[in-house]
This record gives sequence, C-alpha cells and structure tokens, in this order.
Amino acid sequence: MRALDLIIKKRNGQSFSTEEINFMISEFNSGRMPDYQMSALLMAVYFQGLNAKETTALTAALANSGEVIDFSSLGKIVTDKHSSGGVGDKTTLVLAPLVAAAGVSVAKISGRGLGFTGGTIDKLESIPGFSAELSVERFMELVQENDLAIMAQTERLTPADRKLYALRDATGTVENISLIAASIMSKKIAAGADTILLDVKTGKGAFMQSREEAFHLAETMFRIGKDMGRRIVSVVTDMNQPLGYAVGNALEVKEAVETLKGQGPADVEKLCIILGGYLLGLAGKVRNPEAGQEELLRLLRNGAALQKFKEMVSLQGGNVECLEDYSLLPQANYTETVTSTRAGFVQEIDAGKVGRSAALLGAGRAFKGDNIDPSVGIVLNHKVGETVCEGDVLAYLHSNDKDKFKAACRELSNCFTLVDEKTEEFPPLVYGVVPPFPS
Amino acid sequence: MRALDLIIKKRNGQSFSTEEINFMISEFNSGRMPDYQMSALLMAVYFQGLNAKETTALTAALANSGEVIDFSSLGKIVTDKHSSGGVGDKTTLVLAPLVAAAGVSVAKISGRGLGFTGGTIDKLESIPGFSAELSVERFMELVQENDLAIMAQTERLTPADRKLYALRDATGTVENISLIAASIMSKKIAAGADTILLDVKTGKGAFMQSREEAFHLAETMFRIGKDMGRRIVSVVTDMNQPLGYAVGNALEVKEAVETLKGQGPADVEKLCIILGGYLLGLAGKVRNPEAGQEELLRLLRNGAALQKFKEMVSLQGGNVECLEDYSLLPQANYTETVTSTRAGFVQEIDAGKVGRSAALLGAGRAFKGDNIDPSVGIVLNHKVGETVCEGDVLAYLHSNDKDKFKAACRELSNCFTLVDEKTEEFPPLVYGVVPPFPS
Repeated sequence: MRALDLIIKKRNGQSFSTEEINFMISEFNSGRMPDYQMSALLMAVYFQGLNAKETTALTAALANSGEVIDFSSLGKIVTDKHSSGGVGDKTTLVLAPLVAAAGVSVAKISGRGLGFTGGTIDKLESIPGFSAELSVERFMELVQENDLAIMAQTERLTPADRKLYALRDATGTVENISLIAASIMSKKIAAGADTILLDVKTGKGAFMQSREEAFHLAETMFRIGKDMGRRIVSVVTDMNQPLGYAVGNALEVKEAVETLKGQGPADVEKLCIILGGYLLGLAGKVRNPEAGQEELLRLLRNGAALQKFKEMVSLQGGNVECLEDYSLLPQANYTETVTSTRAGFVQEIDAGKVGRSAALLGAGRAFKGDNIDPSVGIVLNHKVGETVCEGDVLAYLHSNDKDKFKAACRELSNCFTLVDEKTEEFPPLVYGVVPPFPS
Repeated sequence: MRALDLIIKKRNGQSFSTEEINFMISEFNSGRMPDYQMSALLMAVYFQGLNAKETTALTAALANSGEVIDFSSLGKIVTDKHSSGGVGDKTTLVLAPLVAAAGVSVAKISGRGLGFTGGTIDKLESIPGFSAELSVERFMELVQENDLAIMAQTERLTPADRKLYALRDATGTVENISLIAASIMSKKIAAGADTILLDVKTGKGAFMQSREEAFHLAETMFRIGKDMGRRIVSVVTDMNQPLGYAVGNALEVKEAVETLKGQGPADVEKLCIILGGYLLGLAGKVRNPEAGQEELLRLLRNGAALQKFKEMVSLQGGNVECLEDYSLLPQANYTETVTSTRAGFVQEIDAGKVGRSAALLGAGRAFKGDNIDPSVGIVLNHKVGETVCEGDVLAYLHSNDKDKFKAACRELSNCFTLVDEKTEEFPPLVYGVVPPFPS
C-alpha cells in the first residue's frame, strides 16, 4: 500500500477500505506520510466525499491514534455533550450539573475555543482557581465520586485528529461534513462516554450557517455514533441571535449561575431543559424526554443543580464564593453602552456580528495560544421580538482598552435590525432532532 | 494575499488573476508557500481546472522563475521541437539536423527521460564522448555557428517547474491538461526559440492514451504559444506501435543514422519529413509544408542532413566514427530472439508493452538519477500489417543480464496481436494538426 495510490484512488472517486484508512492515518500520524500528500488527499476528499463506512472508519482510526478512555470499570452510564459552538453558548455550564444532579454521570472533555469567544474550558477558567487540566485518572475519579467532571483536551487523546485538523485549517479542507463529523466524533469516542448528546447549531453565529448543512452534520454524526455502538442523539438548534444576553467568558459564567438559580434568560433555561430531557431519556433514567424535562425543572427550582455545579467548581479548585459574589469574578475596567438611534421592534440580532464584536474586545482568540481576557464582553439589553425606544440601551460593552472598545462598538452597532411592524415569525429554539425521538 | 485564500478560491471554482498566479509561484519557489499548501491547491486545480488565461499566466510564471534564454541577438529565426514522448521515438535525432541542413536554426533543450527508454539526451550520450552538458553561452554559440545544438536541461532554467512537477508526481496531480501544458510550454518559453513544433503522441505507448486528450493537450499548448507571441504548430501523431524497429538508446541512434542515410524505417522517415515540413513552413523558409517536405527529402537523399548531424556530434565532443562503424557504439552481451508461436497477420504491436519490456532490460529509468544501460533494448523484426509464419523471429532482445532478459521476454511475448484475416485498417501516422495548416 502506498499513500500516492490512495490519493489517486480517492481522486478518481473510489472508496477506501477500512484497512486503507487505518494505513493512511497511521502513516500520517507517524510522519511517514508527509503533509503534502495528506493535504492533496484531503482536497480529493473535499471533492469526492467519504461514504458512511469510510467516515466511521476514519473516526475510529483517529480515536485509536491515542489513548481511549474506558469508563466500563465504573459500572454506570457515562454521558457526554457536545456543541458545535455558538455565540453566548453557555449551555454546558448549566446542562452538565443539571443532568448530574439527576444522577446521570457527565464526563466532558472540551477544547479551548478558537473563534469569537472562549470555549467551555475558557469560561470555567474565569472562575479564580478553577483548573480543567486534569489527568485522565483524576477525571475518572471525579466522575466516579461526583458524577461530574469537565477536563481540557490532553495531548494523549486523538493526536492524529489534532495533526489532521491543523493541516486542514491551513489547506482549505475544513469544510467537508464527513471530515468535520469524524473529527468531532473521534474526540467523543476517545473520551469514553457511552451516551452522547450533540447540539448542532445553525444560523448567523454558527459554523454551519445553513440549516440543511446542520442537519447533514447532525445525521452524519448520529450515524457514526450508532455504528460505533453509542447511544446518541443530535439536536439542531438556532444560533441566529446569541443565546441569552451575555457574550464573554466571566459574563457568561455569571449568566449560567443565574440560570442555575432559576433567574436566567428564558432561552438558556429552555434549551438546557430540552437538551437535558433528551440526555436523561437516552440514558434510560426517564421513560421519555418530556418526563426528563419535568425532572430537570424540579432540580433547577430546588437548587440541586446549583449545588452540583458548586461541588464541581470546588473539587476542581475554583473559588465557590464567586458564584454568590460575582464581583469576585474578573471585572473589566470600562463599561459603555450602545444605544438605539430609532424606535422599533427588534427583528434580528446578528449573532455573528455580536461574536466578532466580542472578539474585538479580547474575549476570543484568533490563533491557538492567544491569551483571552476573561473579563471583557457584551451584555445585550434586548432580544429579538422586543420593542425599543430611540435612545434605549441596546447593549453594554465591558472592555479594558478604549481602542478595542471603539472597534467593537462600530461592529456592534450593525448587529440590530429594527423594523416598524412587529412580526411574529422568529426562528424557533430547536429545529429538529436526529433521530426523531424516540429512535 | 495569502496562499490559503488562493486555495479556497480555486476550490470554490473561481479564477486566478495573473497577479495571484505570479504570487503563488513566487511564494512556492522561494519556499514561503509550503508544499502542503501547494499540493492542496494542485488537487483543487485538478478538479476545478484552469482557464486559458490562467494557464498562460502559469506558463509565464514558471518560465520566469529562472533564466530565460534570448536568441534575439543572433538575428535569425530559432526553432525548437518537442515530443510528448513515445516508444522508439528517435525523431529529434533525424529531424533536428534535417531542418538545420535546410538553413533553419534548431536549438533544443531536452530532459533526461523518465520512463520506458531514455530521452533524446540519453540517446545522444550513448555516442562515446558526446556531451549535452553545455553552458547556455556555448549552446548559443553552437546555434550561431552551426545552426544546431542539443543541450541537457540545466538547473538555471524553470526551477519552479521542476519543484512543482516533483510535487505533482508525489501527490496524484500530474493528470491535468492545463498543468501538463504549462509545464512543457514553460520549458519551451525559457529555452528561447521563437518558432516551436510540438509532436503530441497518442496511443498505447504514449502518455496521452486517448486521441481526444491528445488534441486537448495539443490545442492548449498551441494557444499558450500563440498568447506568448510564438510561431507554433501542434501535430498529433500515432504511438500505438513503436516508431521504427529499434527501442533502446544506442539501438535508436543507429536507426536514426540509418534514416539520415536514407536507409531507415519508412515510418520514421515519413514522420520526420512531415514534421520538418511544418517547421520549415512555420519558419517562413518555404511557401507551404509540402514544399518543405520536398526540400527535406532532397537534403536527406544528398547526405546534407547526415553531414549536419556529424558536425553536431563532433562539436559536442562525440566520436563521429561510431556513425559509420556501429560496433563502436555500446553493445549488449547477449542477443536473443522472440519467435512467433503461430502464423498470421500482425494486427497490433502494443507500444506500451514493448516499452515496459525495454525498461525491464535496463533501457529506461524508474527514478530520477537511475543509471541507464545504453546498449540494451529491443529491435522488432516485423511491424503492423506484415505477415509472419510460425517460428518467425518477431523481435531481437539485446541484454546484459540473463534474469532481466527472461522478464523482458515474458512481457514482449504479449506485445504482438496476430490474426488470420488481414485487415487494412491501421492507425495513420498523423491524426491531425493544430491549427489546421496554414493558420
């Protein structure tokens, strides 16, 4: 078997056997197949695609390129949740303790975010003292003892995926559903959970801008999970306007804690309850998702979910007092407002623009290794469907740098679309579920 | 401008500007654009193609990546001839001195062959003492003084083409007409001739197996040449059976010299006269190709072309006595025969298989830098359309190694297709000319 022959095979539209995919990933991971051959092969895949069998084989090969966590010794169901990423998406911070409070273990491994704002790990690390740099052993211990742990991606898991992604990023070969799905799912498979909830976001603030593509990705990942013996559900959700009001790391922690206290934005609470319902159903804890939703609402109202979150923060070294006294979280030096130049109804808030505005303030990273400023970000004052008067505050900007503030303001002032006639047709929170539940 | 953006642009089916192509080749040639980005871009080109303007711009960028020879100071028309390569193709050895004998300068730069047998340089270097390792200055001097010089490709010409071709060869991106045409034409442009004849071969022993592809390549190269202000003609010729009888370096030199003596195979002589007629017409030496053919036949018959060849061999250090006493050329130790197991008419001789058989004897090189054995090869005893009896010699194999001989024999015994009924439908020598002459 030669790498060159595999490139030509895919270029000519033929399919790879599992052995060929294993060979290719093993040769690439060891450096025997040079980057210039892999990038040509990736571009051939971009044009010719991978079929279902190839996509699953690629996922397995990437997962098996490093350590694979095995929770079977714990003797209980372990769940994981993944979001394809969005602006103001603090779902994991609420959903994970909520599900754990219901007695279903959550073991989540998360990357540091590239893009508008930080990822889950960056958000949690804005809590002073909190550490997500766990060993796999400590991660498993926490899942065993507290049903909940959130760990940063380690070098030991899926090294071939990391290497492949870096190459795709530099060669225009990111945008292929099979490659995207295999990359995400390889990390889920290596992370060891047997029950997986995928939240595929679509809209102006999401990686998958079109709904059709989002469903394609949701279906592809679902099928991979099934093929690999996982219990799995993919939910396609809206990311046209930001989720909740807060966009920025510490600001989102505060909003997530408010949600765990029953005082959060309606959309954040609703989405977490819906997604959690599916996860409880999938784990067999309740007879259907609706029953799961009822149970989760109860655990939100009675403080059990908040308590579980506090336990996790404490066990991972974070200062729990921050969760009651928010002034202990990182604070920006300046807060400024963007006001409305006219009266009207908010028809749209472009999540992509809000995200870029937050990034301009320093809430995100453009390159791996960039520092994030946990204190900065944006808090919207209105959401889609609300009425504003001329001069009303549309959003608050938290910044540590007056120049960055100006650039962010310019970007943010274009986010809001105001109209005279109030329309009632707004995007729903959830577009659909794969498979239509119950499977 | 960033290389990544150019990859994505081509991937999405857009066209490059000339500035973008210049940037890309300059960045690649200097090493600032890494191989893994260029190979992804090449695969995108494989799928999305290059339009005529892009192909010419690429040719110019590759030509300008190194030294470009300028014959304008010589004050005369300088011609060049290129063949896309075939089995037993010794055309240049006959055609170049023939045209030069007619008073039209020929300045040919040639690569060492990769494939079944050596290239023109390898063939000439089988003449003891002959050197094609000329400086550009000496090359120009010989063209000035003797109207004829054949030089090996130097490192100073088209370095970016060399680097790009090596990458294409390793990444499954050779087979694209625009890239093939730009690679060939960049070398022709850098070699400085203002008048160019291209011989595009098609059939079982050619790189372009289908006639449609051969015409596509012929047209693409013609258009590039026109765009770059060259007088140019592309001729599509047959390479289903080998040209002449001899396949192998010294064996082909002998056959070429026999042709220059008016005693060569009919097909070799005819093809050289036809191609040469076009070249004389293009150079304005005669009023039409037919008049050129008459003149060339005269120069073949009266010994002027042979005399010109001898002068070139002598000026480039070769032993001219070899051309009269062939035993002074490299000789193989063994000569064996392949005989016919049945009587019949020769319907086909697969040039590809004859070529592979010659390569097995050591007449070609699989990798750059491999040594060629100039003495070995095959001499056919029959051509397509002839009648053979059972036991007749079909071919003579010249070898220095009994093991190689056995392997070559096995390959060669499958080359001949014998039939009972004589058919009259054989491939013509020439399929067509681009443009239909006169342009």
